[in-house]
Amino acid sequence: MKQTLNTSWKGNMQFDALVGDHHVIMDASPEVGGENAGVRPKSLMLASLAGCTGMDVISILKKMRVEPRTFDIRIEAELTEEHPKHYTSMHLIYEFSGDNLDEEKLRKAIDLSQERYCGVSAAYRKALELTYEIRILG
Amino acid sequence: MKQTLNTSWKGNMQFDALVGDHHVIMDASPEVGGENAGVRPKSLMLASLAGCTGMDVISILKKMRVEPRTFDIRIEAELTEEHPKHYTSMHLIYEFSGDNLDEEKLRKAIDLSQERYCGVSAAYRKALELTYEIRILG
Repeated sequence: MKQTLNTSWKGNMQFDALVGDHHVIMDASPEVGGENAGVRPKSLMLASLAGCTGMDVISILKKMRVEPRTFDIRIEAELTEEHPKHYTSMHLIYEFSGDNLDEEKLRKAIDLSQERYCGVSAAYRKALELTYEIRILG
Repeated sequence: MKQTLNTSWKGNMQFDALVGDHHVIMDASPEVGGENAGVRPKSLMLASLAGCTGMDVISILKKMRVEPRTFDIRIEAELTEEHPKHYTSMHLIYEFSGDNLDEEKLRKAIDLSQERYCGVSAAYRKALELTYEIRILG
């Protein structure tokens, strides 16, 4: 299956990626000559992972008839100090709140995403250490 | 160096990643129960790569006193058909237009990004095949 994506330079340090029919604006911080008019590109690696596994989990939970009140995914990532500055590890914290949440089902949905469905996790796992935990609030 | 990112579920298949002080909205397509209110998460892997290497290249070119009129980065990526659906290769096309562009300098800036500076390339190269070429228009 082939996918293409076009990204255009918008002057200075700004780039505009056309992702489907949505624009994602990327820019550098003022400290390195940008204007912070958009996101730092590298951080999009983290958003990509969170969204990918998040959508898996929420659609598996729907089939299990589990609906959390809130669901957050926090990622703690470790970055090298030396060039090329790249992520060496990512730890995901899946955080839920809601009434009578079945921890077994939550855990199963997350495991299914991480082991079978999430293509971003599958790719990153070849490049860095990927770990995860679950937290249920309240 | 540590980085953290939080992503919140917004109902249905929608997620909101807070990247620095910018929101990136992700959503699934209507075919799989989403409303296309934001980008597909996996595609952000491509935007991340394009922005990362694009910023390297444009800042190296600035030091070389080379300013293109236009600069686009197109990525052609190959995705598996089977779960977990993940990228197996990415080919970058760096496309420039402008007056009297010095191809040697353009090529040098790209090589420096790919070999030394771009942390997204460095990570992806461990997980998939990464290739690139340069095109000068006009």
